[in-house]
Amino acid sequence: MRVLVLGGDGFCGWPTSLHLSAQGHEVTIVDNFARRNADVELEAASLTPISPLGTRLRAWQEVTGREIGFERFDVAEHYHRLLTLLQVWRPDAVVHFAEQRAAPYSMKSSWHKRYTVSNNLNATNNLLAAVVEADLHDVHVVHLGTMGVYGYGTAGITIPEGYLDIQIPTADGDVVETSILYPPNPGSIYHMTKAQDQLLFGYYNKNDGLRVTDLHQGIVWGTETAETRQDLRLVNRFDYDGDYGTVLNRFLMQAAVGYPLTVHGSGGQTRAFIHIQDTVRCLQLAVEHPPAAGERVRVFNQMTETHRLRDLAKLVSELTGAQVDHVDNPRNEADENDLRVESRQLLELGLEPITLEEGLLTEVADIARRYADRADLDKIPARSRWRRQR
Amino acid sequence: MRVLVLGGDGFCGWPTSLHLSAQGHEVTIVDNFARRNADVELEAASLTPISPLGTRLRAWQEVTGREIGFERFDVAEHYHRLLTLLQVWRPDAVVHFAEQRAAPYSMKSSWHKRYTVSNNLNATNNLLAAVVEADLHDVHVVHLGTMGVYGYGTAGITIPEGYLDIQIPTADGDVVETSILYPPNPGSIYHMTKAQDQLLFGYYNKNDGLRVTDLHQGIVWGTETAETRQDLRLVNRFDYDGDYGTVLNRFLMQAAVGYPLTVHGSGGQTRAFIHIQDTVRCLQLAVEHPPAAGERVRVFNQMTETHRLRDLAKLVSELTGAQVDHVDNPRNEADENDLRVESRQLLELGLEPITLEEGLLTEVADIARRYADRADLDKIPARSRWRRQR
Repeated sequence: MRVLVLGGDGFCGWPTSLHLSAQGHEVTIVDNFARRNADVELEAASLTPISPLGTRLRAWQEVTGREIGFERFDVAEHYHRLLTLLQVWRPDAVVHFAEQRAAPYSMKSSWHKRYTVSNNLNATNNLLAAVVEADLHDVHVVHLGTMGVYGYGTAGITIPEGYLDIQIPTADGDVVETSILYPPNPGSIYHMTKAQDQLLFGYYNKNDGLRVTDLHQGIVWGTETAETRQDLRLVNRFDYDGDYGTVLNRFLMQAAVGYPLTVHGSGGQTRAFIHIQDTVRCLQLAVEHPPAAGERVRVFNQMTETHRLRDLAKLVSELTGAQVDHVDNPRNEADENDLRVESRQLLELGLEPITLEEGLLTEVADIARRYADRADLDKIPARSRWRRQR
Repeated sequence: MRVLVLGGDGFCGWPTSLHLSAQGHEVTIVDNFARRNADVELEAASLTPISPLGTRLRAWQEVTGREIGFERFDVAEHYHRLLTLLQVWRPDAVVHFAEQRAAPYSMKSSWHKRYTVSNNLNATNNLLAAVVEADLHDVHVVHLGTMGVYGYGTAGITIPEGYLDIQIPTADGDVVETSILYPPNPGSIYHMTKAQDQLLFGYYNKNDGLRVTDLHQGIVWGTETAETRQDLRLVNRFDYDGDYGTVLNRFLMQAAVGYPLTVHGSGGQTRAFIHIQDTVRCLQLAVEHPPAAGERVRVFNQMTETHRLRDLAKLVSELTGAQVDHVDNPRNEADENDLRVESRQLLELGLEPITLEEGLLTEVADIARRYADRADLDKIPARSRWRRQR
């Protein structure tokens, strides 16, 4: 298949592009280097020494003989570049990672809220409008959503894959049964944009019959995949800073440099997780199994296990001997929550999950310890606050 | 009260600004003249001879002695102008009309879809981010939403004012009861942006405690209000073109110029209506009754009656002798639907609705016939198509 990967230089986009290429798909990346530019802004850097995209693409060709195309433009700004590329290259699928993807970054200031809303919504709408204008109604749009659109669930409910069966009591004592998109309860401006994306997908699916798969991903951990390991120039990024570093990566980094593991609040927050190797496999499964014509937007919960954050800290602490330190929670969220998630469809398509228990030690040794001398400890704390201090 | 009216030169914004001023509120208008510029683009014009805003404001001062302030900028683009205005002027309420408000316009082309999404979402997000940044957490944001976020309801359900009580059956045979935002089912890109706005309001309300009232308005008919009638220079706009003209205005215009009334499809579509005089009264009631601190987003259904379109055509036909002509429906919507709507809260606050039956004849005589010679008949048909012809 011919697959266009929007945001193909980023943390999920890069290993996904390599994995799809390795499976024999023809891949073209679109990227505006927004993620690398955010490093400049934040005075932060990937712990792993990532190569420029040109070097990455040359290395991939040397190692595998496979070519990946590249076009540099901003999907949210340069509509006509995107339209022309679709018209000329006629992809079978477009994987859409071209969004600002960090909750703390989206909450740093008004500018960051505004950038996140404008970039994410315009990128998604530009893609959908261009697919319709190019008359490519059969192209399959695969979008990286987030488990965060659900909020953290309603007590007693197992979070379904996108759609919830409900009953509505009527005035005359009857009950109407229907299936709705799970009522979103996003926890940050970033997560909210992904809930707004769902409305865009729903509308274009209903009005224009577009085929869309929305992957509601949990928190990703891990760094390397089978493809990025093949050459040091292919190494994937590892973020440990307070904005882009996800919780497990920050714990691993803290452990590797002898810092206490900083748990926000009680650590009773339960979250869903997935290894980056499983992410790229899920993307492949989604791309290779498009919805039928006329099918509603397909939603998969792209996660493999759930953990309380304090249990994760304990696990990392046991592996490494690091101390655990509870700090004030800068986010506006419940201190304790349960989380039950349905995640069946990707398993049925053939996903074989990597568990935290088997992968975590490798990650500590291969990445966090190996590159510990590159770490800037000052970047680890999360400094974005969800609300102004009153 | 000090009230900032974003989009205060438009069809709803202008009479609302006058009405609030007449009630003794201190009013400042922000507008970028997007609506007047759309007339230039569409080569269309208001049937009524509207004055430039400067003339309007001078006339209002001459007639009533009251001053209304004006700042010309684009709320979606010029964030810092808005922020500074909030910081310096410190309004008690901000009425937000600064959105592209026509469904057919939003469907004309990719450019129109993209403009509508970018303008409407960025305008709303800019306002909310600026209120938080200016630390004006008590300011009351009053937004003009649309009945169109609901879609046209689920069989047997009376559409509630924003929130729906549902029951969720759980795996272990229990039922969880909860209240959710009514699941949106928008019928155009324009309507979709208003559903996306709801997520913005919900998020800022939850995270920052902002006070928001969202007015889900039906289709407005009528032109003049008690204030716009006081001087010809104050006259409100009347749109009859295929993009901005709402259904009843198009019927009235067609009748006035001896054209058959063009009903889309069978005319079995049932819609909610409200007179412009009631619109400005509802805005006043909403502004003067802000939600309490900590209250969730308040949603009012701002409509006073529902009608099937073919019944409306029949009514206008009986008043005027015009023929009724059924044409292909350019929209992608059900040909026939029922619509039951709850609309109690505005009545409880004191709204006394004007009915179609009493107001329609005046409208035909005072506006449509009076200005019939200004009409460009070529502009009446709706030419935007929701889907490409296959």
